[in-house]
Amino acid sequence: MNTDERAINLITSLVLEELKNAGATISNSYDVPVGVSNRHIHLSKSDMDTLFGYGYKLNKIKDLNQPGEYACKEVVDIYFNDRSIKKVRILGPIRKQTQVEISSSDARKLRANPPVRGSGKLDGSSPITIVGPKDKVDLKQGLIIANRHIHLTPRDAERVGLKDNQVVSVKVCGEKGGVFDNVCCRVSPNYFFEMHIDTDDASAFGISNNDRVEIIKNKD
Amino acid sequence: MNTDERAINLITSLVLEELKNAGATISNSYDVPVGVSNRHIHLSKSDMDTLFGYGYKLNKIKDLNQPGEYACKEVVDIYFNDRSIKKVRILGPIRKQTQVEISSSDARKLRANPPVRGSGKLDGSSPITIVGPKDKVDLKQGLIIANRHIHLTPRDAERVGLKDNQVVSVKVCGEKGGVFDNVCCRVSPNYFFEMHIDTDDASAFGISNNDRVEIIKNKD
Repeated sequence: MNTDERAINLITSLVLEELKNAGATISNSYDVPVGVSNRHIHLSKSDMDTLFGYGYKLNKIKDLNQPGEYACKEVVDIYFNDRSIKKVRILGPIRKQTQVEISSSDARKLRANPPVRGSGKLDGSSPITIVGPKDKVDLKQGLIIANRHIHLTPRDAERVGLKDNQVVSVKVCGEKGGVFDNVCCRVSPNYFFEMHIDTDDASAFGISNNDRVEIIKNKD
Repeated sequence: MNTDERAINLITSLVLEELKNAGATISNSYDVPVGVSNRHIHLSKSDMDTLFGYGYKLNKIKDLNQPGEYACKEVVDIYFNDRSIKKVRILGPIRKQTQVEISSSDARKLRANPPVRGSGKLDGSSPITIVGPKDKVDLKQGLIIANRHIHLTPRDAERVGLKDNQVVSVKVCGEKGGVFDNVCCRVSPNYFFEMHIDTDDASAFGISNNDRVEIIKNKD
């Protein structure tokens, strides 16, 4: 999504909010735009130094919708035993722990069985080897299938009546439509309102970046 | 699924039916086992003759769960403009029309946009070129993404209260669970009770062959 599209989404959300405050009946007030995540890697400073050389700086090629996050020029290969996936994109900025996020079909290619996890929850996740231009790192854990999640600001969360870590379902229309269960809400002032799914989910449901889906709050 | 697994599924269905007839409360009486379809091709006699040589006979390597259907030793390449997918499996026996069934992620690789269709409903479907060992065929139509569907015998259909062509939803449990909408019921005495999904659906929902899913009848 470029800056224009992001501005349009923000304006749409704000206009819908004002209309709702003015008493209008809006059927899609729980709609959220979709962002499809391809496999990617977040690196720690230490692992970046090993893979690319001490003091290396990542090269941003594109801002992502989540403020401060960006896609980098750099790609690396990942290995699980003798199986590999080449040219996996690195996302910046640097994080505390290195984390490799793949889809279920990627996991099948690697013959790996990583857990479905929220970002940063790496205890007991799968091992993975990352090979960069300078050296490799063998991680004892760090390979996950990212859970389906929705990023919300506190303002978004208040508007749609959701809390941090609340689990919801999400309805998708269309010929290959249906419902995603176990979608985790994550609230932070630094976020941009968007649901993140992986490429398997996008293919199965026939949806693409910026398609709108509907949040269904589960009964308590 | 081998013969043992098929027998177990049949016995399970019959026992559940008898228990239900005897008045038992069974929460999973609408459960159906899943069969995951990888990309494949059904050939007409004429196209088989072109691709493999006149009078060629397909070589069965494995019976499928649907009676009379089988996987063949033979694979062919498919082309859409300059994009291709190699070694696509042929399923027997011969059909009236050639039909190529791929997933949404396959369609993305080919940069094709085939419709989601029931088997045999090829009017207005996408063109595709098939290349065999002897020659190629350029089809004006025949490329589809198979719709999600459930095969039922008339006896299965009566037991679960469904009709031919009825559209239902199907619930999937698990961390990547959810609901498949737009699932078409197909009833024939020649069928084996099974839900067919493609590899994208299986990956997105974290399910495999013989996992059981729950049919949800939509309100009329």
